[in-house]
Amino acid sequence: MKKVAVIMGSDSDWPVVQGACAQLAALEIPYEAHILSAHRTPAQAADFAANARANGFGVLICAAGMAAHLAGAFAANTTLPVIGIPMKGGALDGLDALLSTVQMPSGIPVAAVALNGAKNAAVLAAQILAVEDGALAARLDAERRKMAEQIAAKDAKLQGELLT
Amino acid sequence: MKKVAVIMGSDSDWPVVQGACAQLAALEIPYEAHILSAHRTPAQAADFAANARANGFGVLICAAGMAAHLAGAFAANTTLPVIGIPMKGGALDGLDALLSTVQMPSGIPVAAVALNGAKNAAVLAAQILAVEDGALAARLDAERRKMAEQIAAKDAKLQGELLT
Amino acid sequence: MKKVAVIMGSDSDWPVVQGACAQLAALEIPYEAHILSAHRTPAQAADFAANARANGFGVLICAAGMAAHLAGAFAANTTLPVIGIPMKGGALDGLDALLSTVQMPSGIPVAAVALNGAKNAAVLAAQILAVEDGALAARLDAERRKMAEQIAAKDAKLQGELLT
Amino acid sequence: MKKVAVIMGSDSDWPVVQGACAQLAALEIPYEAHILSAHRTPAQAADFAANARANGFGVLICAAGMAAHLAGAFAANTTLPVIGIPMKGGALDGLDALLSTVQMPSGIPVAAVALNGAKNAAVLAAQILAVEDGALAARLDAERRKMAEQIAAKDAKLQGELLT
Amino acid sequence: MKKVAVIMGSDSDWPVVQGACAQLAALEIPYEAHILSAHRTPAQAADFAANARANGFGVLICAAGMAAHLAGAFAANTTLPVIGIPMKGGALDGLDALLSTVQMPSGIPVAAVALNGAKNAAVLAAQILAVEDGALAARLDAERRKMAEQIAAKDAKLQGELLT
Amino acid sequence: MKKVAVIMGSDSDWPVVQGACAQLAALEIPYEAHILSAHRTPAQAADFAANARANGFGVLICAAGMAAHLAGAFAANTTLPVIGIPMKGGALDGLDALLSTVQMPSGIPVAAVALNGAKNAAVLAAQILAVEDGALAARLDAERRKMAEQIAAKDAKLQGELLT
Amino acid sequence: MKKVAVIMGSDSDWPVVQGACAQLAALEIPYEAHILSAHRTPAQAADFAANARANGFGVLICAAGMAAHLAGAFAANTTLPVIGIPMKGGALDGLDALLSTVQMPSGIPVAAVALNGAKNAAVLAAQILAVEDGALAARLDAERRKMAEQIAAKDAKLQGELLT
Amino acid sequence: MKKVAVIMGSDSDWPVVQGACAQLAALEIPYEAHILSAHRTPAQAADFAANARANGFGVLICAAGMAAHLAGAFAANTTLPVIGIPMKGGALDGLDALLSTVQMPSGIPVAAVALNGAKNAAVLAAQILAVEDGALAARLDAERRKMAEQIAAKDAKLQGELLT
Repeated sequence: MKKVAVIMGSDSDWPVVQGACAQLAALEIPYEAHILSAHRTPAQAADFAANARANGFGVLICAAGMAAHLAGAFAANTTLPVIGIPMKGGALDGLDALLSTVQMPSGIPVAAVALNGAKNAAVLAAQILAVEDGALAARLDAERRKMAEQIAAKDAKLQGELLT
Repeated sequence: MKKVAVIMGSDSDWPVVQGACAQLAALEIPYEAHILSAHRTPAQAADFAANARANGFGVLICAAGMAAHLAGAFAANTTLPVIGIPMKGGALDGLDALLSTVQMPSGIPVAAVALNGAKNAAVLAAQILAVEDGALAARLDAERRKMAEQIAAKDAKLQGELLT
Repeated sequence: MKKVAVIMGSDSDWPVVQGACAQLAALEIPYEAHILSAHRTPAQAADFAANARANGFGVLICAAGMAAHLAGAFAANTTLPVIGIPMKGGALDGLDALLSTVQMPSGIPVAAVALNGAKNAAVLAAQILAVEDGALAARLDAERRKMAEQIAAKDAKLQGELLT
Repeated sequence: MKKVAVIMGSDSDWPVVQGACAQLAALEIPYEAHILSAHRTPAQAADFAANARANGFGVLICAAGMAAHLAGAFAANTTLPVIGIPMKGGALDGLDALLSTVQMPSGIPVAAVALNGAKNAAVLAAQILAVEDGALAARLDAERRKMAEQIAAKDAKLQGELLT
Repeated sequence: MKKVAVIMGSDSDWPVVQGACAQLAALEIPYEAHILSAHRTPAQAADFAANARANGFGVLICAAGMAAHLAGAFAANTTLPVIGIPMKGGALDGLDALLSTVQMPSGIPVAAVALNGAKNAAVLAAQILAVEDGALAARLDAERRKMAEQIAAKDAKLQGELLT
Repeated sequence: MKKVAVIMGSDSDWPVVQGACAQLAALEIPYEAHILSAHRTPAQAADFAANARANGFGVLICAAGMAAHLAGAFAANTTLPVIGIPMKGGALDGLDALLSTVQMPSGIPVAAVALNGAKNAAVLAAQILAVEDGALAARLDAERRKMAEQIAAKDAKLQGELLT
Repeated sequence: MKKVAVIMGSDSDWPVVQGACAQLAALEIPYEAHILSAHRTPAQAADFAANARANGFGVLICAAGMAAHLAGAFAANTTLPVIGIPMKGGALDGLDALLSTVQMPSGIPVAAVALNGAKNAAVLAAQILAVEDGALAARLDAERRKMAEQIAAKDAKLQGELLT
Repeated sequence: MKKVAVIMGSDSDWPVVQGACAQLAALEIPYEAHILSAHRTPAQAADFAANARANGFGVLICAAGMAAHLAGAFAANTTLPVIGIPMKGGALDGLDALLSTVQMPSGIPVAAVALNGAKNAAVLAAQILAVEDGALAARLDAERRKMAEQIAAKDAKLQGELLT
């Protein structure tokens, strides 16, 4: 299976971003995690993106806050799908990072997920890899069923509490 | 190659959404376009999504405005990657559609692109299909080079104008 | 009397949502509370809404945060009045949930109340049921008078404090 | 059947607000339309609301823009359900009217619909009256089916265009 | 001297609003403070405003949050100047209260001050009363000079700290 | 009677600002209108404000857009009441001007009116001057009654149209 | 004198951006204008920035809209001062471009000017070059005086009009 | 070398603003820090700005919150480059200060940095002084290399942690 790269602009993003890694591991998807900055290490970030396909990556996940250029800088240097996680913590409750991630110009898309949406970035990466991987698609379907069962269990628990 | 479905919530979205179809055609990607509403035809929308993988689709693109639930409603019924195009025209210059599209709950991602970003939705769909399709990846790379050449040509034209 | 359904997208919404249940109970209105997700249990949510009128419900209250599609998904599957409570906790202090709840497309309304406005959702449900129920209307009027008296009592207390 | 009152703060709101009246007429619901201002005719507005139940009204629809207090001023003087239509045209593309309408304090709800959502206000009023009126509920269900058929027809038309 | 009325919509506003009272007292301006709600005690609020000029008031200060209609409801019932204090604590960091206070329709102004700006509301009230009261104007000028001296003293202290 | 100064930061503001002058004239209030910029003529602006009381002014109205510092710059140099009109035309539909006008620091208030609220600025200035001027207060009350009569006339006209 | 580089992300920015060139020319400052995209020509953009100091540039002006990464991409590759012009035309009236430009991470500043603020970007560049260039500083001072005179002339014209 | 002035509107800004001073000191740039208010000490602020060039300053840094006029008031009184630091703590997570700082009118620029971006203001000031100072430019380049090395070291540390 192709690998997923999980890139963060700062080690302070790790407490959120590791949720993506945990989700990828749970789905048995190989990944690498790296700290690379669009602004502090621009050449290394461009190189990583430019060589990602050749290096066996299938999807790139980029997490950054404030003027979040990381996903866009990666997308500018590869035609692999790039998923952007806008991080809270800047201005307007993360609106700066969301708009900086999602409002990409014509021709160079970034796939934005929710603010701090690390788990969803990993699920989306898995969905992308599962387009041609039936076994992974089955694991994703199984996780969906589990989620539905958890909701049902919580509802049952609530009914019990409401009776008392 | 797997097909791309391009879904819009209203026929009034077509002038923007057809930009996605044009881009898919230019990249030689098979697609279908449909009008389906999360709110006016919820059962049909759920059915389409639930059967999309079996029907040969690899990626779903959903365009909707205002309280844009279409992409989320599709994502709730499939584990295929779902790309959401938030449409302008509602409140706050489209912020309603953007937030309704991107802020999905944990476990059910939508890949949001820019407001009215129909072309980028198509490019992203192509990037997803190109993960396991070298020929399509080569077409995407070629388009990138063409974009860079266009910029260079425009810059050269500007230099000519500045000289006069 | 017809029942009110109080639906929340996640059990984490319960601390706020139970304020709606408490208010319904105080007004002697029968209700059920359930956890159902537009995205994690879409079929169950659609079924609940589609059968709600037949099952004796008169009003549906749906609480959800972020890309809050729950009320809209219910409204798409019933012509009973659906009240949406947008929950804080997502982006922009809950603006994501507010816009996702209120900006419904033409033909499928949701009655939005304030962010985290669980008590008001219950009062609104009561007002709806009271249109044809004079006794309930009288209980609502009595509660209004009590609120006015409380304000008057607090003002009197303030006057006392200002004198000292 | 109980009547619906459609109140607007200014005659300049009429081009939008008459959409509510047209929808009520189409559903065979009796209504009155009035111009009353929370700020310019506060006593008349309060009187109208206070006497609305006695005067045979079942639901009140209030449309106002900017610091849109009209729905709130009505809600303060009746326990009938009050639906607020926030009007565009003030600041931030109507966000002023939306927040002024929906963010009501605890105990005094307003049911907010989308910006300029006159048709949906009427549908919501109909849904409220239909809670105890099976014939009206049937008319609402029929309108829903018609909407779904229109979507299907538009989709069929699109398929035809795509073939050519 | 004419009195200032300081009105708040809820006793929970008092910790902020008492800053207005303290400032009025410091400027030797007579005032009354009251709890009156535009939504819970609309008739009393209207009465207070309508009789304020006859009762010896010269300026009215109204503090409210969320869909903050209090200042507007007062302004609708008097031609005395009404100062609105938008309170934080609702949505979007108080933007709901700010827009509900300041965006008044043509003909019925409210003088809005900053979010939670209780002290400034009192200073503005004093400035209004000082238009025809030279002694009060002199007290305001003296307070200005004191503010400037405090800044100068703080700057001198900073210079001392920077030297060490 | 004391004069009102109507100051605008740019002659491009005049089409809106002259609405304030027309309203002042209609209320028989003497005024002067001037173009003065907080940023392009800071010394002249400061001088005008510092000498305004001595020069017979009772209220100052300042209209400015974008980073609207004009009202604040005037307020910094006088203890007369300063009314700020935030002008549309900058960013976010005038939110830049609104926040720059209303969010004044503690001790130096500006009385903000609605975006482009020139007429209301004039009415507020009149209300301030009317605190000690019964004749002017009577003219304001008369204008209020006229507004209410206009609403009633418009409602009567609407009733006529609805009958046909 | 060192040159100023005026970079725009798209030739569609030129109608606004040429205002910067005109201002630089009026101040007799040598400049070059180029079209370079952070996303479509990332390597060329990085090279331009990395070599800008050696190539005789003293200040770089970068204009871009939407997820405006251009100024940040330049700032990442040089320690020359980089001025960012956020362009309107994307989402929320240009707030996307403003936040993407100004909210740079610690260590890599961009000097943001107003939305579409091309002239001010040029004036700021001139101010930077004038720190060590007394003749240019004098030209800037002269332009300031001219601006003040224009305001005075417009005010005089207004006085004339008001007399008639 | 020319000095940098670091001005803050209130001593409460010092915990953030001292980050600018620390950065200037680390780059061996002489500076002065002062407390001066555009609203409480307008004459002193104007004087400081007007005499700054003659007093040996090359760049001015102004930090202020809310209706942040400080940088603009300085820019109005000098043609030296003025850097504005918008401070959080007012409304909308600091959007008031950001817009009040950056949206300056044509002809009078302020160079805005990120919200609370004290360190970046200092780096930008250093970049401005380094345009004609090769030794300072070299220190800035060295700091850039150090930042890149820190990122690389953090990435190496992360790789070690991921192995275990």
